Amino acid sequence: MMKNEATEKRFFDVVGIGNAIVDVLVKTDDSFLAKHSLIKGSMSLVDQKKAEELYNESGPGMETSGGSAANTLSGISQLGGSAGFIGRVKEDQLGAIFTHDIKSVGTYFRTPPALDGPSTARCLIFVTPDGERTMCTYLGASVQLEPEDLELSIVKEANVLYLEGYLWDNSSAKRAFLAAAEAARSSKRKVALSLSDSFCVDRHRESFLDLIEKNVDILFANENEIISLFQCQDFETAIKEVKDCCEVIALTRGKTGSVIIHEGEALTIPAFSFGELVDTTGAGDLYASGFLYGYTTNKSLLECGKMGSICAGKVVTQLGPRPQSSLRSLIINHI
Amino acid sequence: MMKNEATEKRFFDVVGIGNAIVDVLVKTDDSFLAKHSLIKGSMSLVDQKKAEELYNESGPGMETSGGSAANTLSGISQLGGSAGFIGRVKEDQLGAIFTHDIKSVGTYFRTPPALDGPSTARCLIFVTPDGERTMCTYLGASVQLEPEDLELSIVKEANVLYLEGYLWDNSSAKRAFLAAAEAARSSKRKVALSLSDSFCVDRHRESFLDLIEKNVDILFANENEIISLFQCQDFETAIKEVKDCCEVIALTRGKTGSVIIHEGEALTIPAFSFGELVDTTGAGDLYASGFLYGYTTNKSLLECGKMGSICAGKVVTQLGPRPQSSLRSLIINHI
Repeated sequence: MMKNEATEKRFFDVVGIGNAIVDVLVKTDDSFLAKHSLIKGSMSLVDQKKAEELYNESGPGMETSGGSAANTLSGISQLGGSAGFIGRVKEDQLGAIFTHDIKSVGTYFRTPPALDGPSTARCLIFVTPDGERTMCTYLGASVQLEPEDLELSIVKEANVLYLEGYLWDNSSAKRAFLAAAEAARSSKRKVALSLSDSFCVDRHRESFLDLIEKNVDILFANENEIISLFQCQDFETAIKEVKDCCEVIALTRGKTGSVIIHEGEALTIPAFSFGELVDTTGAGDLYASGFLYGYTTNKSLLECGKMGSICAGKVVTQLGPRPQSSLRSLIINHI
Repeated sequence: MMKNEATEKRFFDVVGIGNAIVDVLVKTDDSFLAKHSLIKGSMSLVDQKKAEELYNESGPGMETSGGSAANTLSGISQLGGSAGFIGRVKEDQLGAIFTHDIKSVGTYFRTPPALDGPSTARCLIFVTPDGERTMCTYLGASVQLEPEDLELSIVKEANVLYLEGYLWDNSSAKRAFLAAAEAARSSKRKVALSLSDSFCVDRHRESFLDLIEKNVDILFANENEIISLFQCQDFETAIKEVKDCCEVIALTRGKTGSVIIHEGEALTIPAFSFGELVDTTGAGDLYASGFLYGYTTNKSLLECGKMGSICAGKVVTQLGPRPQSSLRSLIINHI
């Protein structure tokens, strides 16, 4: 097994940058997706008008803090790791909910809220009876993240900098993202990236490939994302393409489990199941939580993968992306 | 079986008045309740400062529309009944969530929001591992309900006027409540009351007894509430005390089911179970939904009670008081 270099204890295990989003979970059926031309399992960006239109036509919802990187960092805190989040909310009720939820699990979060402009970002998540989620995101205040908001001191104090691909969808957040990646690299920290969504990869393929080659040590992707990144026919071909692109590549495959690639070797990790599939929201985010918690506590890659699988397997048995039960005791009982 | 008088079809089956509240559901443990001197299963009123203090010390939450009467009316709409709600939110993000959720199931809701003053009401609901809920309510904008906000036309157009006991905790809502009860009685409509909480009964025992005697046709209460109302030693004694106080009395007993009292006769209704107990929030409210849906569709009292038991049995298997799955198909399959 690889011995990772993150052995020197720093204040933060992982610091991440992402869109600060409140999720609105709505149970719906396939005909709703068809009516609104939504592609199941995808994330679309919508403007305020479209967000309101979709919301008005939706059934009753449940609101819970979300955002891909924010979910991952919350999960790391819930596992007992030390995590920090950088992202922008507005000073409004949804912003207060986001701020409360992430701080309440012990994640460091100090990015000042926007005092004017658009409201806190919202993601309408339509959960179909098969447990699959389809997302429509109104980015709102989260796009106002600028490089000067970055707390480079906390980025340099973290063993791993974690970035979500979704940030690529707005230029100021992308600039902040690149500035942070460079700061982390210059301090010899690891940089991890989650590709987020296959359509997001489609929109930004070339710049993602460039970023991965130059600045990424740990890459998280699911099957669709990695196939899209390399424009392959299937997962097996994508695995061959990906193998030298960075130090560690963790590829998630839903019920099939995951594959971790390191130094040309592929490790297969089984999926864990803890009950009926209710909602896949947050599965990839929580896989990254478990993996990075293992990685920053110097576990073997096999154990990192298992921790990821356990966290992902648990979050899909509930509604919403922030685990409602103790991840720490789950890991202790299953590793 | 009694033939109820609600046979003439009017526009609304049930119109209700209640506090318009957004719930913040937080999973917690018994030590949190002990630390904050909260009595398990009860509802306490808190001011804004106390609400913020408790929230700051709570874990991550999920937000969902709540409010006792609002839950009942949403449930009636989900069953296919025609329901209207009267209650006050503020024009803020939580108010928009409340308004969306209740309208999205088809409940009529047109009370204009408050434009200034305190924010939309919030109820912190601490759910312990046994599934029991303990509530701390900040009434916020909901106390601004005045008699002039009442749409007496819709009250007169409803077969049943439904009132929650919690309204008794603020004087303007209480005045609105009494005005509505009188309007309903003068139009020969039925008036239903839910006692809401044993501590609420303690605070207002005399005026509840007076109200029930003069203005209530259908009374909903759980064991603790009815024992508190008559200051009895046990449920059996309370049943004897209650029997002539109004036309129909529905007494819920959790896992033991419910007892319906009419013309001196007591009908015993079993509880229904649809899986593991997750959260008792909304159990009493949804019992009233099922019962009143049956009552306004001219079902026998035995069937009304069964419908109540089914709706209550379903809502306790999920987090939050608004059922996420179809109540209508559940009733069709179980009656």
